[in-house]
Amino acid sequence: MTVPDVTASFDSMWAELGPVGRVSSGGYRRFAWTREDHTLREWFAAECARRGLDLVEDRMGNQWAWWWDGPGSVDDAVAAGNSGVAIGSHLDSVPDGGAYDGPLGVVSSLAAVDALRAAGVTLSRPLAVVNFVDEEGARFGVACAGSRVITGAMTPERALGLTDADGVRMADALVSAGRDPQAVGRDEETLGRVGAFVELHVEQGRGLVDLEVPVAVASDIWPHGRWRFDFPGEANHAGTTRLEDRRDAMLGYADLVLGARKTAQLRGCVATVGKVSVTPGGVNAIPSHVTGWLDSRGPDEAEVRATVEELRERAADFGATVTEESWTGTTRFDQPLSDRLRGVLGRDDALSVPVLGTGAGHDAGILASAGVPSAMLFVRNPTGVSHSPEEHAERDDCHAGVAALTACVTDLVTP
Amino acid sequence: MTVPDVTASFDSMWAELGPVGRVSSGGYRRFAWTREDHTLREWFAAECARRGLDLVEDRMGNQWAWWWDGPGSVDDAVAAGNSGVAIGSHLDSVPDGGAYDGPLGVVSSLAAVDALRAAGVTLSRPLAVVNFVDEEGARFGVACAGSRVITGAMTPERALGLTDADGVRMADALVSAGRDPQAVGRDEETLGRVGAFVELHVEQGRGLVDLEVPVAVASDIWPHGRWRFDFPGEANHAGTTRLEDRRDAMLGYADLVLGARKTAQLRGCVATVGKVSVTPGGVNAIPSHVTGWLDSRGPDEAEVRATVEELRERAADFGATVTEESWTGTTRFDQPLSDRLRGVLGRDDALSVPVLGTGAGHDAGILASAGVPSAMLFVRNPTGVSHSPEEHAERDDCHAGVAALTACVTDLVTP
Repeated sequence: MTVPDVTASFDSMWAELGPVGRVSSGGYRRFAWTREDHTLREWFAAECARRGLDLVEDRMGNQWAWWWDGPGSVDDAVAAGNSGVAIGSHLDSVPDGGAYDGPLGVVSSLAAVDALRAAGVTLSRPLAVVNFVDEEGARFGVACAGSRVITGAMTPERALGLTDADGVRMADALVSAGRDPQAVGRDEETLGRVGAFVELHVEQGRGLVDLEVPVAVASDIWPHGRWRFDFPGEANHAGTTRLEDRRDAMLGYADLVLGARKTAQLRGCVATVGKVSVTPGGVNAIPSHVTGWLDSRGPDEAEVRATVEELRERAADFGATVTEESWTGTTRFDQPLSDRLRGVLGRDDALSVPVLGTGAGHDAGILASAGVPSAMLFVRNPTGVSHSPEEHAERDDCHAGVAALTACVTDLVTP
Repeated sequence: MTVPDVTASFDSMWAELGPVGRVSSGGYRRFAWTREDHTLREWFAAECARRGLDLVEDRMGNQWAWWWDGPGSVDDAVAAGNSGVAIGSHLDSVPDGGAYDGPLGVVSSLAAVDALRAAGVTLSRPLAVVNFVDEEGARFGVACAGSRVITGAMTPERALGLTDADGVRMADALVSAGRDPQAVGRDEETLGRVGAFVELHVEQGRGLVDLEVPVAVASDIWPHGRWRFDFPGEANHAGTTRLEDRRDAMLGYADLVLGARKTAQLRGCVATVGKVSVTPGGVNAIPSHVTGWLDSRGPDEAEVRATVEELRERAADFGATVTEESWTGTTRFDQPLSDRLRGVLGRDDALSVPVLGTGAGHDAGILASAGVPSAMLFVRNPTGVSHSPEEHAERDDCHAGVAALTACVTDLVTP
């Protein structure tokens, strides 16, 4: 089939999202259950309504917009052996994040629906566009909270008890956003509908730039996790306390930052300390407590584990306690599904479509780990920069991404 | 004369101040031009009114409460050669600061007024109790802002343009607190009234503990300053950016923290990095900018300067820019005034009263530098801990401080 031109639809949705949560840096602050998040969810619901999709929110508030013309309901189709296909991503951002990480997948999915409609496709199985909530974990510290909760990878107790920088519990944030914390939990009903999930995402490295190709299929997600290092100290006056009488919590923290870089380098991983909190935080007060958050990942699980273990031992010299806030082992995407997408995109020569691993976590990885056949498409990023206002994808590449996703979905939802 | 017992008055004022701005740590958050600050200023005004003192606010909002029974006005007395004596301190705190740093001097001064009244003293020169605003600089980063502005040590332009952590300019904070930023500036009229200033303060070290004496007279304040180190970086994804492609602003910051400790140790100074700000501050985002604030002091001016210079060169390797936010050279208190206080307190043997230097800055130091004859009394601190909820002075020592201050003031304001 010829893929209909839906570039105008993509461009118009992209322009609408541009101002939402944009800050002076040129980046975005779109955090879960904030006003900006609410605006984005309303926008998504309206776009789905315009396309006649049936919006269902799961137990965590992830938005699933279904297209199914019958016979029977979506659940009837699933019961009859025609499980659904879901495409989508997320709309939230890291602090001062870029425009593409997340929204590119959601907008491309809606545009793909437009293309299928324009092509007059009749579905052989239900199709959903999904907007996952709180993918970045920017507010409560755990990435992919939306998919983790519905797959049971995170218990409702743990999720609801997480606190943001202002001490607000996720349970209270949910209430403020008009949601019911009681409902939060693993959602078998939702997962049961999804026979395949395809997430399109801007590439967060320079793999496609080097290969001079606009779209790739993902192979796996590196093992990755987050650890909280709490360094104790004793508050005292910065001018009047002799150096030998001090217990300055900042010293252990600084040692962690430098140690993380060095150890990761030696072990072929990456490690980052991007967030810190200091008590009391006065210029003339010796820190009585410093919390630093370590993010570490790498192609080899054992090396990532060893990196964190070395840093834990090092921090123990400063009396630190270390808490694992999240850990995800190597996630391999579904091989048959990924091969099928390569076949669609490469037509006669599937091997011409690159396959790339990534150091970034994604909802598709969480679903894959939960047994939902999942795959990803990456769209070229000319600088490789991500989680920054400089994150970018050329418009032509975005359109190529929509065409690729449309082709893949068409293959999946037609007999 | 026998010093009247005003311990009940002291104790009752102390109990009243206890809850104001107290936080869960047991420490205090009393920052300039906040609600807590307003409550404290109202409390001070009410205590002064109860004693029939005339409250005058200077151009920066420092509160001066005058006692003068004439003949003529305070200014008449000054013009006739009877310059005023001021006693007092400040009521604001560092984040999670102790109860004593500042308030001990204000409450002791009010109690001293009670003692003078009870003794039926007739003043030969005007006496003021002063509450300086924003001594700690906890909110806008410059300590002793109240005394710096009225002495001209800080220009009104610089003060009004300072911003707090929320980006609020001091000018706007003043407006919010109902003050007029236009009025801010050097205040000759106020300074002209003060012929001597005595500030009583809790000791912020263990000098008096070692000497087993409750009260000392100050000799000098160490040279001290604050420097802002701005480290540049490039925001990017913590999982997908190769270590060799990173510009992580946190690394230079960590090097500063460890370098500060080492250099200060070698040069016989103290150096502290107690405050840091990270952009964007996400767990999975490489920091694009880190700002660290260095506080450094020591008995020798040249060594403090050399410490900061070494750190500046070190930080330059990371592309950092360094801004001096404040600098105060060695401040010697007025020798004749300090000797006089020692004479009063030591009666027959002035040498029995210890003389201590300090690494902490004080409004008395700013006034001394501006040519106002100034001196300080220190009250024993059993742990030496300060700028912390653990900061403490035994009640008996507080009462001894009031008696000492009363004796000194009596000597100064009677013929």
